[in-house]
Amino acid sequence: MKVFQHTLQLKERKRGFHLITTEIIESLPQPGNIIIGMCHIFIQHTSASITLNENADPTVRKDFEMYFNKAVPENDPDYSHDSEGPDDMPAHLKAALLGNSLTIPISKGKLALGTWQGIYLCEHRNYGHRRNLVITVWGM
Amino acid sequence: MKVFQHTLQLKERKRGFHLITTEIIESLPQPGNIIIGMCHIFIQHTSASITLNENADPTVRKDFEMYFNKAVPENDPDYSHDSEGPDDMPAHLKAALLGNSLTIPISKGKLALGTWQGIYLCEHRNYGHRRNLVITVWGM
Amino acid sequence: MKVFQHTLQLKERKRGFHLITTEIIESLPQPGNIIIGMCHIFIQHTSASITLNENADPTVRKDFEMYFNKAVPENDPDYSHDSEGPDDMPAHLKAALLGNSLTIPISKGKLALGTWQGIYLCEHRNYGHRRNLVITVWGM
Repeated sequence: MKVFQHTLQLKERKRGFHLITTEIIESLPQPGNIIIGMCHIFIQHTSASITLNENADPTVRKDFEMYFNKAVPENDPDYSHDSEGPDDMPAHLKAALLGNSLTIPISKGKLALGTWQGIYLCEHRNYGHRRNLVITVWGM
Repeated sequence: MKVFQHTLQLKERKRGFHLITTEIIESLPQPGNIIIGMCHIFIQHTSASITLNENADPTVRKDFEMYFNKAVPENDPDYSHDSEGPDDMPAHLKAALLGNSLTIPISKGKLALGTWQGIYLCEHRNYGHRRNLVITVWGM
Repeated sequence: MKVFQHTLQLKERKRGFHLITTEIIESLPQPGNIIIGMCHIFIQHTSASITLNENADPTVRKDFEMYFNKAVPENDPDYSHDSEGPDDMPAHLKAALLGNSLTIPISKGKLALGTWQGIYLCEHRNYGHRRNLVITVWGM
């Protein structure tokens, strides 16, 4: 059993949902070194998140942004934590709904994603910044 | 440290929340071979999901279907991605809210589920189909 | 590759979101024994959950409670499962939205949390009770 770990700093992206599958795959150390095992991707932030979803039609990612803006409204007068602006507290809530990590199996040396699955970076702040991922791979 | 991996194809189920705990457990290779470790269950789709919840009362699963239909409405005129019907985009959103994988500890050779925890397959499409799971187990 | 597993019983807490980062870290066996690897925290319940979010400002946790009470209302007449009171079914739904486990990388012998990330216990019942966690650590 082997374990590898590295960090990947993503460039700043605008608010919304972004496909980062290729970036993740290209960052993986020694592709094929682990034939069967797991890949874990962890975002070290509380106002951005990562998830898996449809990788082909960009309107899906547009609809994600639309939906989560309705489901987690800005400017709710009941928010107490608003010192960083109207997108502050909603960003924390969206991050909790979508999640801070992905765990993806590795089969035959590659991520065992389904045909339509892509990795999304979900940037919930109006002015995000570079986002740090910790990527850990283990297996045989 | 050992690692095992297999795929499990679930039969087609109707839209809703379905208990699949027994199917998962029966599929695990060499029960007891791993005494302490982890089991990871990954669904290779973006319009169905898996989660853990109450395993005893079927009305809980009925209420899950009712709640998520209200929380993620169909026919929102703001959806752009609707070519596969009104259940298309809501299915992607529900899958993101509920999640694409479960990671469950193995203790004393068995899944360390709480008394009331069962594994749900969440089928979000009106006409789903067979769903593929990749199940990976590792430990000692 | 090593694997350690233990259970941690959390004391009863009132309904709401509670920081438990220190309790988790203090429970980890042999700190530094695993230099690079993973920590998995699993809650064996279906009416409480765990997540990662902002660790500094207590109003964030207050806003989480406020938001999830709006997003998952009590007393919806469409609930079928209500025998344990109005907080019963909403607790199951909130637990599914927030999640039952966390997987956090270990780097240099410590949890690789971001600066602002803390571990939340989310108690969704009016009268919760002691909550059991199963914590598994693996790596080298």
